[in-house]
Amino acid sequence: MPILYKDAGVDIDRLNILKREIGKKVKKTFSPAVLSEIGLFGSLYQLSGYKEPVLVSSVDGVGTKLLIAQMMERHNTVGEDLVNHSVNDILTLGAKPLFFLDYIAFSEIEDKVLKEIFFGLRRACQKNKVSLVGGETAQMPGIYPKGVYDLVGFIVGVVEKKKMITGKKIKEGDLVLGLPSNGLHTNGYSLARKILLEEKKFRLDESPFPLKNELGDELLRVHKSYLKEVSPFLSLIKGIAHITGGGFYENIKRILPEGVSVFIKKGSWQIPEIFRLIQDAGSIPDEEMYRVFNMGIGMVLFVAKENLRRIKSKGLKVIGEVKKGKREVVIE
Amino acid sequence: MPILYKDAGVDIDRLNILKREIGKKVKKTFSPAVLSEIGLFGSLYQLSGYKEPVLVSSVDGVGTKLLIAQMMERHNTVGEDLVNHSVNDILTLGAKPLFFLDYIAFSEIEDKVLKEIFFGLRRACQKNKVSLVGGETAQMPGIYPKGVYDLVGFIVGVVEKKKMITGKKIKEGDLVLGLPSNGLHTNGYSLARKILLEEKKFRLDESPFPLKNELGDELLRVHKSYLKEVSPFLSLIKGIAHITGGGFYENIKRILPEGVSVFIKKGSWQIPEIFRLIQDAGSIPDEEMYRVFNMGIGMVLFVAKENLRRIKSKGLKVIGEVKKGKREVVIE
Repeated sequence: MPILYKDAGVDIDRLNILKREIGKKVKKTFSPAVLSEIGLFGSLYQLSGYKEPVLVSSVDGVGTKLLIAQMMERHNTVGEDLVNHSVNDILTLGAKPLFFLDYIAFSEIEDKVLKEIFFGLRRACQKNKVSLVGGETAQMPGIYPKGVYDLVGFIVGVVEKKKMITGKKIKEGDLVLGLPSNGLHTNGYSLARKILLEEKKFRLDESPFPLKNELGDELLRVHKSYLKEVSPFLSLIKGIAHITGGGFYENIKRILPEGVSVFIKKGSWQIPEIFRLIQDAGSIPDEEMYRVFNMGIGMVLFVAKENLRRIKSKGLKVIGEVKKGKREVVIE
Repeated sequence: MPILYKDAGVDIDRLNILKREIGKKVKKTFSPAVLSEIGLFGSLYQLSGYKEPVLVSSVDGVGTKLLIAQMMERHNTVGEDLVNHSVNDILTLGAKPLFFLDYIAFSEIEDKVLKEIFFGLRRACQKNKVSLVGGETAQMPGIYPKGVYDLVGFIVGVVEKKKMITGKKIKEGDLVLGLPSNGLHTNGYSLARKILLEEKKFRLDESPFPLKNELGDELLRVHKSYLKEVSPFLSLIKGIAHITGGGFYENIKRILPEGVSVFIKKGSWQIPEIFRLIQDAGSIPDEEMYRVFNMGIGMVLFVAKENLRRIKSKGLKVIGEVKKGKREVVIE
């Protein structure tokens, strides 16, 4: 009996049919700058209208939030998490997103699951006006356990060199503004799962105090995109930190210039219930919470005091200020 | 006892130290166009010198060749496989590579292994003059089994719009040229492993007939980059196919315009021993072999007959020709 590729756990034909079907829908996200058809070896995007274009790129995954999606059998939001996360990452440098590529890997996957993942990717790309120009769907028996997949995204955006936001002009007296998150976004899930699901053995369909909604729904809330909200004010902003893995400390520090520190005031915003639940259930010290989670602040902006009144955004709070210092982030 | 992130299997501190060490070395790949420091939320690359720049992007993984690397405990070449594969993919459209981002995911990984992976990425980026501008190193307990990692790469290159190679001008009478591969490159590993390791139970340190070298070495040969070889002739080439997953049939078809078919002549090049070993051991029909593997041809070029004498490359063979047809790939 001959051994075929199919026998080795790789079914080219089935995946090809599925890819064609998905490809047709994905084309709806294309801007006129996309010159390529789906299926070439690379994706073509014509760049025009910039004097000194700087390409801004980033790669990210969804992390173990994927495991919650798998437990909930709800795969239509993780793609949105990924795209929004990526859009926010390059927004911190002032960039407008241009195009996105995905990578999905698994040993086996149901058609339904793959379609749901793409539904989320596509929806977020449309909302953020990003072209989903390409991707790779990799069947890798022996690397991924059954029923498990990984999802990775790659984004490219552009900013005029003169309009790059670098944090270099942040100085003593500047204000630190916080934009509200709607939950964990995409980080801290390994710790949250350990505490809530393994130690406390909460079910995803219950609503442990002080949650108002079911735990599974809270944990799957879609990572917010701040693109629309922040874009109108970009010229007023000196620095942006996206509060993701590494929490407040690491992410704010990334953009701080020499000679200044940031002082964040606890209590200047309301911490969502999900974080209080995790902290209490795991007896986690405050510092560790701010080091792992966003604590209700998804994005941090730095502005000169005199520009504060020109920035209007729903739920925006002044959460701290910049003082002389040694590039420290102090939460007090 | 409080539960910390570390207890949940995620060790931010250790990974941060390692990332800084790797980051310093990675900077050696930076071209002067890279404006960012490692550690920002996105990577900055200034694009200049193009009239009508078209960005060409691609995402890829190494596939289950990773499992061979893991069995051989040799992790310093898979990064090269990935970069070279990506460089070739965008080369098919005429693009010069600009920058690269990696994604490495695992539940646990030794420092040594991570450093070896980066060694390979860095070496290939230097050889291909690509800036390794960023990446994501994701610790995901619960998704990856112990000792297993996945490695994904994203590349962006650029081509002048007028110099794009699209395959559209391929016509009856054109020649099909083949550039030699040096082994499996990065595809067909699931089938190769199934046949050679599971069914035949060959050890990686033996040399089953007709191999001259040890099986493990043959299987880990680094995917060739064709950038240096092909770049001088790009203006003479009408179409390029990178023979990867999907073999001859799918990859050549990708670039064929309406109205023509390709006829490849078996025996017009020598098929490397590793493919003969796999085919014999698995009693695989010829068609399946050409559908899964590169069979010794890593890249296929289309040129007008009159330009053949102007193209010189080591081991290059005329392997077929273009005739009228319905976009078929016939291997006869």
